[in-house]
Amino acid sequence: MAKIIQHWVKRHSFNLNTLYPKVALMVAAEFWEQGDLERTVLDQQPIVSLWRSVLLLERSHCDKSSNPRFSDFVDKQTGYTTKNILAAPLMNGKDPLGVVMAINKVGGNEFSKADEDLFTKYITFATVIALQHYTSYMYNVESRRSQVLQWTASKVFEELTDIERQFHKALYTVRTYLLCERYSVGLLDMTKEKEFYDEWPVKLGDVEPYKGPKTPDGREINFYKIIDYLLESKEEIKVIPTPPVDHWALVSGLPTYVAENGFICNMMNVAADDYFTFQKEAVDESGFVIKNVLSLPIVNKKEEIVGVATFFNRKDGKPFDEQDEQITEALTQFLGWSVLNCDTYDKLNRTEWRREIAAEMVIYQTKATPAEVQQILVRHHTSSCFKETADCDQREMYKLLRANIPEAKDVDLLLFSFSDLPVSELDLIKCGIRCFFELGVVEKFKVPAEVLTKWMYTVRKGYRDITYHNWRHGFNVGQTMFCLLQTGRLRKYYSDLDAFAMVAAAFCHDIDHRGTNNLYQTKSTSPLAKLHGSSILERHHLDYSKTLMAEESVNIFQSLQKRQFETVQHLHDVCIIATDLALYFKKRTMFQKIVDATEPMADEKEAIAYVSNNPIRKEIIMAMMMTGCDLSAITKPWEVQSKVALMVAAEFWEQGDLERTVLDQQPIPMMDRNKSDELPKMQCGFIDFVCSFVYKEFSRFHKEITPMFDGLNNNRVHWKELADIYQAKVDAIENERKRLEEEQAKKATGEDGGEGGKSKTCTIF
Amino acid sequence: MAKIIQHWVKRHSFNLNTLYPKVALMVAAEFWEQGDLERTVLDQQPIVSLWRSVLLLERSHCDKSSNPRFSDFVDKQTGYTTKNILAAPLMNGKDPLGVVMAINKVGGNEFSKADEDLFTKYITFATVIALQHYTSYMYNVESRRSQVLQWTASKVFEELTDIERQFHKALYTVRTYLLCERYSVGLLDMTKEKEFYDEWPVKLGDVEPYKGPKTPDGREINFYKIIDYLLESKEEIKVIPTPPVDHWALVSGLPTYVAENGFICNMMNVAADDYFTFQKEAVDESGFVIKNVLSLPIVNKKEEIVGVATFFNRKDGKPFDEQDEQITEALTQFLGWSVLNCDTYDKLNRTEWRREIAAEMVIYQTKATPAEVQQILVRHHTSSCFKETADCDQREMYKLLRANIPEAKDVDLLLFSFSDLPVSELDLIKCGIRCFFELGVVEKFKVPAEVLTKWMYTVRKGYRDITYHNWRHGFNVGQTMFCLLQTGRLRKYYSDLDAFAMVAAAFCHDIDHRGTNNLYQTKSTSPLAKLHGSSILERHHLDYSKTLMAEESVNIFQSLQKRQFETVQHLHDVCIIATDLALYFKKRTMFQKIVDATEPMADEKEAIAYVSNNPIRKEIIMAMMMTGCDLSAITKPWEVQSKVALMVAAEFWEQGDLERTVLDQQPIPMMDRNKSDELPKMQCGFIDFVCSFVYKEFSRFHKEITPMFDGLNNNRVHWKELADIYQAKVDAIENERKRLEEEQAKKATGEDGGEGGKSKTCTIF
Repeated sequence: MAKIIQHWVKRHSFNLNTLYPKVALMVAAEFWEQGDLERTVLDQQPIVSLWRSVLLLERSHCDKSSNPRFSDFVDKQTGYTTKNILAAPLMNGKDPLGVVMAINKVGGNEFSKADEDLFTKYITFATVIALQHYTSYMYNVESRRSQVLQWTASKVFEELTDIERQFHKALYTVRTYLLCERYSVGLLDMTKEKEFYDEWPVKLGDVEPYKGPKTPDGREINFYKIIDYLLESKEEIKVIPTPPVDHWALVSGLPTYVAENGFICNMMNVAADDYFTFQKEAVDESGFVIKNVLSLPIVNKKEEIVGVATFFNRKDGKPFDEQDEQITEALTQFLGWSVLNCDTYDKLNRTEWRREIAAEMVIYQTKATPAEVQQILVRHHTSSCFKETADCDQREMYKLLRANIPEAKDVDLLLFSFSDLPVSELDLIKCGIRCFFELGVVEKFKVPAEVLTKWMYTVRKGYRDITYHNWRHGFNVGQTMFCLLQTGRLRKYYSDLDAFAMVAAAFCHDIDHRGTNNLYQTKSTSPLAKLHGSSILERHHLDYSKTLMAEESVNIFQSLQKRQFETVQHLHDVCIIATDLALYFKKRTMFQKIVDATEPMADEKEAIAYVSNNPIRKEIIMAMMMTGCDLSAITKPWEVQSKVALMVAAEFWEQGDLERTVLDQQPIPMMDRNKSDELPKMQCGFIDFVCSFVYKEFSRFHKEITPMFDGLNNNRVHWKELADIYQAKVDAIENERKRLEEEQAKKATGEDGGEGGKSKTCTIF
Repeated sequence: MAKIIQHWVKRHSFNLNTLYPKVALMVAAEFWEQGDLERTVLDQQPIVSLWRSVLLLERSHCDKSSNPRFSDFVDKQTGYTTKNILAAPLMNGKDPLGVVMAINKVGGNEFSKADEDLFTKYITFATVIALQHYTSYMYNVESRRSQVLQWTASKVFEELTDIERQFHKALYTVRTYLLCERYSVGLLDMTKEKEFYDEWPVKLGDVEPYKGPKTPDGREINFYKIIDYLLESKEEIKVIPTPPVDHWALVSGLPTYVAENGFICNMMNVAADDYFTFQKEAVDESGFVIKNVLSLPIVNKKEEIVGVATFFNRKDGKPFDEQDEQITEALTQFLGWSVLNCDTYDKLNRTEWRREIAAEMVIYQTKATPAEVQQILVRHHTSSCFKETADCDQREMYKLLRANIPEAKDVDLLLFSFSDLPVSELDLIKCGIRCFFELGVVEKFKVPAEVLTKWMYTVRKGYRDITYHNWRHGFNVGQTMFCLLQTGRLRKYYSDLDAFAMVAAAFCHDIDHRGTNNLYQTKSTSPLAKLHGSSILERHHLDYSKTLMAEESVNIFQSLQKRQFETVQHLHDVCIIATDLALYFKKRTMFQKIVDATEPMADEKEAIAYVSNNPIRKEIIMAMMMTGCDLSAITKPWEVQSKVALMVAAEFWEQGDLERTVLDQQPIPMMDRNKSDELPKMQCGFIDFVCSFVYKEFSRFHKEITPMFDGLNNNRVHWKELADIYQAKVDAIENERKRLEEEQAKKATGEDGGEGGKSKTCTIF
């Protein structure tokens, strides 16, 4: 026997790739050179429960005639006569790996004590061999499982698209680890409810209601697609859309059964199965015949069965075992979970489409209508200019447009003291157009007259009709930018394209403002605040202005080259984000340094070179110009400023009201209408801590801008006066209160005094 | 020796959980009872390359003195004198598992041939043991790896939120498989670019540019959060937001190094490392001291390093080995891939917020403004009605509104022959409001006058100013629904709430129509077509009408109870989807059956019961009413129909033009303006195949509706006449063409004849 054991050692122990799970039994079979012993030993227990049932056996030697557990099944099958058996289990701790048996003692009627001792000795070694085979098999199983999971994961996260593509990729990638001849995945229709009109005939009783199988969550079972992977001989993948019910992969009813119950079904012997009838002959021209089948549901995280994966014919011809079930279960479980990716992707797409639909509606609703454009640009087809070239046509159109809009000088467009108050909103649109003509950018950058008109009108419509941050404010900022460039002579640092972009950005800088500030967006967790981490509203205004650039019919930058267009976009970023006052303090010092550096320069050219050769300095000045524009109301003549300041305050108070009612919070004094008396004082503070620097530095930078600083200082005087008057009133009331108190006190003292010196209260102290 | 081998068998072979990877060497060490033999045998190769290097050894017996490979390292360490060695490798196929050595022959100067033979015999068994240990260890590794993957997957797909939560959950779930004392994950800031204003100081040279380490994709390395899992003694998880750079987990520089290079770093002996200096003393109050460290980058599918996972101190005190690297690599790889989930979720959220922003803008831009409402509803505060109760106020408001809108009878609102053509769009809004008063639903369902006015005006504004499917069409469908209910006496089957919803739905049924049909949406792959699989535009109109219901200030159904509101919503579904003509044929027979069934009923009550007790019949009739309304233009007096039909046609032709220009496709004849002459013929076809049934059946159902059928038939006569005239023209031209051809042919024959009978061509035949 020793020789034979050594033989096994050589034969089996080095081969890690042997896949036979019941190796110990094979070893036993080889040892005693008898065929199918399993059933004999195991009282004809079926194969599947073999591992468990051997546990019941004790190491024993048995005499066939006297042992009630003996079965003559194999003897009958083989014609061999079993007389006596010496048997012992191979154990892995408490788990049995197999049974070793010696049958029919040679030269004796029964196995002796000596036989038993010898047998026992070798059992120790046989156990090592069996265990090595078993461990090696289990290692292979686990290694395949982790490979399957890793590859599936790799594919599942490669691309988020539809469930079909995801399953397909993953299942194809792991094919070598599945060790079966063929497998398929059937995808289930996920529709839960029918359209109401399709339900009518059923509800009216005209059509029989569906009585077929349903998934546990109530869907009618309908495989809308089968992907069939044939791994035998030449590999082949077939996709069968809307497979017929008698398709070989469905006709047995097993996939439907799995989809209905969510069970894992392991059909070990298809031919012998009487519950499901599989196709007995070859299923297709490949000659493939179904021998055994393992079918599993693919269940998503919502516990819905989304498909059924079926594996056919284990590669080694044996039925699928528990380990195969484990590997395929890991795979299908993972696939099921990964449906979340597809679902999310689908949700993302649907949300994106809804966003696109809404975005188009916004553009449609806010874009100036032809009738509105006509209010400004009445097209006359002059006989002198045939539509031969667009250029010729445009020249005529420019002429017409210029004729329809006021001259800059007639409406003080070039003055820092310009006031919008006497001008109608429509005329402000016309004035906006005039700015671009004055800049000389319309012809230079080939902005079609109609597009310019439509853009300007659309910008106006983009502003909401709110108390302060409305079109009038938007216009004022654009006009001030225009003024700073032209009258303030800041233009010399900038190209025509820069100037074009800066004025356009200034007009757009508060478009679609809602009358509440960034902090309110955050506190009310508006979608704007969720979308943008900082400079919330500014980023929205910027987005809006870029949306207009993306809409050809209102894109004033449509004739620019790609690089020019990118410059314009960047300048919009700089200009519009710069209007976030929270960023004002970041740029103060940098701006001041530029002013400091240029102030001593005697030669203007030197200053121009210093600024315009450095894109960063240009941007910093530009950003500060935007602040100068945004706050310019505070530099206007007192009769204007006093009115506008009230509008700003009114909008703040409205926000304060919202904070009280909607957010249930106490507004800050600036937004509290109960503290409106303190407005003059707050204006003084605002001038001193924010505005003063801006206009002082700009006046130092360019003396042409001094009118703004003068205006500011003049308003400072007025606000101070009002603040003082209010303060005087407060003081007077306070004094009066004190006087009355004192009087009261005196009176009381007098009365008390009358009654006898100190009060009782005092004596208690 | 046999005894000792048996001892191993018992000691090792059953213990699958032994984790020592170099088991064969341990066996060897135990066998010869000598300490650190590894280095002696292996020419002092370092531990990591041990497995590979033994491959170089041949089975040999060596004499210390004569063998140049002998190293006296261990002898020097132990004081033992090695004289001679008999050694052999334990092999797993071609892979060495270890080395067995016998040292110093007892009773001889060297090992004999007999010693070698005995040694060789036992090597076979030793190999089995070693292999079993090795396989068992590898099984454990693979099994842990697949567990780690499965659990990670389970968590990663549980919830799509942020990367922190995802990593946290996954890492916590797999903690038992990692077999280390502590681990941490550091999350990296993903910001690639700074804001332009933060770059200014750097670009100006005022601030030093960042010179610290960067990730391979160029990000500054900044761990914004560390999650620290302590598994020793009592489990503990710490989250350290914005950890200081001298935090013990970062201070060595290893995580930064990993983030910078993307390497997996296995520091086997932290104390001896001179590149990274780890904290030598206990890192915190737990007393934890770092011994060995395994650190891996977490890389997403875009190849960006999103974080670094670091594992400290393998549980058994040994350094982390190749298998630990494999397991943790599988884990970190998986975590990296799963970032896609978070990214997608983030994208989904951002898209959703953008959608919400756009949706709010749509509502803002289309909602009737206070000024517009004032055009219809001028509020007078009558002295007789103080604002004591809302009811009292509303009664006054109703009075006012009724006074401001035309009476139904004055504008033929109750006639099927009503024409909108002489009525202004504003007056149509007023007429719409009148319908609801006539139905008696305004007071009953407590619709505030202002809300009703605002809703009606907003519906009007929701319609685009296109050729046919504009507000006039929307109004006509609503008016016809009103007429069918009142004049057509279909109201008797419906509740007041039904009637209210039906008329409202009819007014909204084509809101925001774009002048192109469903097929065009599909062919142009518009977002609408992507969103809705069928009844594309109808679903959009429905969505729109429901958006209005969600906006309190225009929600005419605001006073309803929840159940009533749900009914209204459902009736909107039925009514608006029903206007998809593609569904018309589905309901034809069902409607006819109802008409057939009620026709013989003598008692009106019986018919009412037959319909109104069955919600499906009510819905079918309702759906057919919508079709009747939608097509009602074809029943109008000829002077109206002839004009409207041209508008319908004009819109079709515009779509045809788009198909030609945008889609580069040939439109169908109905949409081809080159085939406009065939309009009368097509109208006859449309009447015969679609419209006739509707109005014939409705007339049969309710004789009060006969005027519609009469109108239709009258128009049929007109269209037929025009078609005939056109046909006569076509025929005349055709006849003329034929005549000319024949003449030509005759002429030719005459000429040919003149030249001599048959033509040459004929003779060739």
